[in-house]
Parts: sequence; structure tokens; C-alpha cells
Amino acid sequence: MSSSSAAATAKPPMRDALVAAAFQLFLERGYEQTTVDDIVALAGVGRRSFFRYFPSKEDVVFPDHERCLADMTAFLAGSEADTEPVRRVCDAARLVLRMYAENPTFSVQRYRLTKKVPGLRAYELSVVWRYERALAEYLRGRFAGRPDGTLQADVIAAAVVAAHNNALRSWLRSDGQGDAGATVDHALGYVQSAFSRPGAAEPTENLPVRPERPITSVQAERSGSPEDVVVLVSRRGAPLWRMVQEIESTLGRD
Amino acid sequence: MSSSSAAATAKPPMRDALVAAAFQLFLERGYEQTTVDDIVALAGVGRRSFFRYFPSKEDVVFPDHERCLADMTAFLAGSEADTEPVRRVCDAARLVLRMYAENPTFSVQRYRLTKKVPGLRAYELSVVWRYERALAEYLRGRFAGRPDGTLQADVIAAAVVAAHNNALRSWLRSDGQGDAGATVDHALGYVQSAFSRPGAAEPTENLPVRPERPITSVQAERSGSPEDVVVLVSRRGAPLWRMVQEIESTLGRD
Repeated sequence: MSSSSAAATAKPPMRDALVAAAFQLFLERGYEQTTVDDIVALAGVGRRSFFRYFPSKEDVVFPDHERCLADMTAFLAGSEADTEPVRRVCDAARLVLRMYAENPTFSVQRYRLTKKVPGLRAYELSVVWRYERALAEYLRGRFAGRPDGTLQADVIAAAVVAAHNNALRSWLRSDGQGDAGATVDHALGYVQSAFSRPGAAEPTENLPVRPERPITSVQAERSGSPEDVVVLVSRRGAPLWRMVQEIESTLGRD
Repeated sequence: MSSSSAAATAKPPMRDALVAAAFQLFLERGYEQTTVDDIVALAGVGRRSFFRYFPSKEDVVFPDHERCLADMTAFLAGSEADTEPVRRVCDAARLVLRMYAENPTFSVQRYRLTKKVPGLRAYELSVVWRYERALAEYLRGRFAGRPDGTLQADVIAAAVVAAHNNALRSWLRSDGQGDAGATVDHALGYVQSAFSRPGAAEPTENLPVRPERPITSVQAERSGSPEDVVVLVSRRGAPLWRMVQEIESTLGRD
């Protein structure tokens, strides 16, 4: 561990040293039994140095969330106006996964610690809530013209966070083995499929414009018999939601 | 306020008196500036009586959530095996709304208080989390046979809670005016529509069995040109999700 004066000129190593010392003690003695004084003594720095980096003992358990929240906010603010919004919030959620996957050992240790300490669970809920609000705020902006814009934004943000966390926890329970990225992609794919359909959510307003009309025809023939048929002829490349939209509007029309 | 000895023989009134005293002081002085001693002095009871009903000062702000959580758990446990699961969790969420709507004035006061006090926001997040877990556990049981059962359960539970809370907050912001039930029904309807489609979630297992196969044919012709077509011929009465399912499986097959 570096001395307090040396570390003062090299902030990131001191911060890392505090996190390392804290986790060593949390694992040896337990979280509740470890004080900030114990942590700074092991790291070889003063109490004020600790509080320069971390407002509280809880914060040292989640040292990267503030940076990740800032990254996510910047990522969403930097979105092109024609980015598909549900895909964009899924990509934003992947930033959180990347933070966990960068250091599997640390992430797994923290997961086990957090499960055991109610205070850390509460802290984690507040962090998750901030991620969810960041996603929801972005979506509220994108859905500003929709009648149910805030409702859809809140629901989709919550669904993205839940899918991400389901996949993340499954990876953490496997001790960080396996492909975290693929697990999260699969989970987020479920959310995208749920909210990329007409009726569920409007088709996104910025899909690439196709010069040709993708659906050639939908016809519903009515003869009063249950054998009435719907005939849909569509270009193969047409998005599924367009096919559904055409069928729905045709059936609703007569 | 009743005297301590009279109240001891009539527990619910004493509990109500403590809640009323607490809110009177929270509104007059602020939450942080009110102590448990202040509350019991105004209610005319001893400290131990307070802690018999409420583990902490936070708990007196949310006096009915434990009962409501118990009601929700019992409601879900009492579900018939053939109940449509997404509808069931939506109905379970309506129990929470009912608790708020029973006493609009109190609910609006608490909403304003909670927005101002970070400690109460944290407490509320932990309560919301417990509702969400109750819904998710029920859905996990119902989806036990599905490949993505836990994922779908977690995502749908989160979506239901987000929709409910979006509607609830909108009602609370309107000072408890308007039809809370209709607002929540509309919000939950959005979630039901999102997760009642194939791909998003399996069609519910209890749809009426149709003896005849409703989709006559789906064919995708591939010639390498973007003008490849999909032809769907369907009985008019076929449910939309079956049409989509057939198109999806046909397109995914070749």
C-alpha cells in the first residue's frame, strides 16, 4: 500500500487501494464488523482520504456505479435522433454489464456480500433505481409525442432493467463463468420483442424509410362462414410489425 | 387522543392515533425534525407502544404496506391453476392501488412527504421491491416449464409494477382527483398487450383449444431478390398471434 503523501499525487491508485483494503476486510471479518478506520489503517491512508473518494462505507462497495451512471447518461444524451429508442436503452444497459464483466472476481465477491447485508441491498436498490430513471428519462424524451409516452417509457425502462438484472444475477450465481454478454443479449432480446410490436408499443418512428411499400396486399374475404380467409402477400424483408399492422388494420376496417 | 390505558384495550385505535399524530407533526415540523418521543407525546402513549406497532419512524409513514403485502401474497397463493398469469399479477397490483385510493388525503400527504425525504424514498423503494418480488415469485411458479421462465417472470413483474406506479403517481400528483382505478386499468392494459403476444411471451396456456388448424399456409419463397414474398393464407377468425407465430416460424426455418 502506498503512503498517504505518495498516494495524494496519484489518486486512482489510492482509490483502488481503499477498495482492495475494504474488500479484504469485508471478506475476512464481515461488512458490519469492519469500520472505516479499519479500512484506512490497512490502506495506509487517513480517514479524510477515504471520505474524499467515498461519502460512506456503502459507497466503497459500489465504487464504479457513479462513473457508470455518468457514462450511461452521456451515452443516451449522445444518441442520434433516428436511433431506435428501445434498442438504445438496451445498449445503455449493456454499459452496466460491461462494468461487472470487466472484473468478474470482484463482481462475484460483491454479489455474495450484498446478498448477506440488508443495508447494501437497500443501497443497491437505490442505484438500480437511478439507472432505471436514466433510461426512463431518455425514453420519455423520445416518446414525448405519444399519448402514453411517460407510461411506455417507465414500463420499458423497468423491463430493460429487470431483464438485465435477471441475466446479470444468473451470471454472478455461476461465479462469473459463462458468457455474460450473450446472456444479457438474450434477455434484452426478449424485451425488444415485447415492445417492438404494434398494439404493445407503437412501431418506432425512425425505422429506415423503405421506398417501396413492403406489404403488397392484405385482403379479408367475408362470406359469413368461419372459413373466411385472410390473404397476406408481403415482401420477405418486410418487418413483422408491418405485416401485423396491415392485418390488424384490414381486419378492423370492415 | 385517547389515554394510554384506554388505548391499550383497543389496539387499532391506538395504532391509528399514532399514525395521525405522526403525520400531524411531520406536516407541521417536517419529518426529520419529528422524533418518536414527539409522536408518542402527542398521541398520549408510551414509547414502547409505538415500537409495538412500528419497528422504526419510517414504518409509521407506510402503516398499511405490510398488510397489503400479506393480502397480495394470499391473493396470488389462492389463484386457480387455470388463471391467466399476467392478468392475475395485474389484479394483484390493483390491491395496492385500492389501499392508496381508500384514503386519498392521507395518500397525497404521504406522497408529498416521501418526495422530500431521501430516507423515505429509500424505504419506499424497498417496499416496491417486495411487491415486485411477490409478483415475480408467483409468475416464476406459473412459468416453471418455460425455457425463459424466470426471465419472463422478472420482466413482467417489473413492467406491472412500473405501470401501476406510473398511474398511481399521476393520480397522486393530481391530488387524488380523478378515477385512480381507470388510470391504473389503462396502464396495466398496456402491459397485458405487450406480453400477450408470441415472441414476447408464449400465448397463455389456457386459450380455447381449436380443433381445426387456424392457419392454412404460410410460404416464403426465396429467389435471392428483395422481392421475395411471404404469402399467408389464414382463416379469418384465427387469432393474430397464431398468424404471427406461423410467419415467424416459416421465416426462421429456411
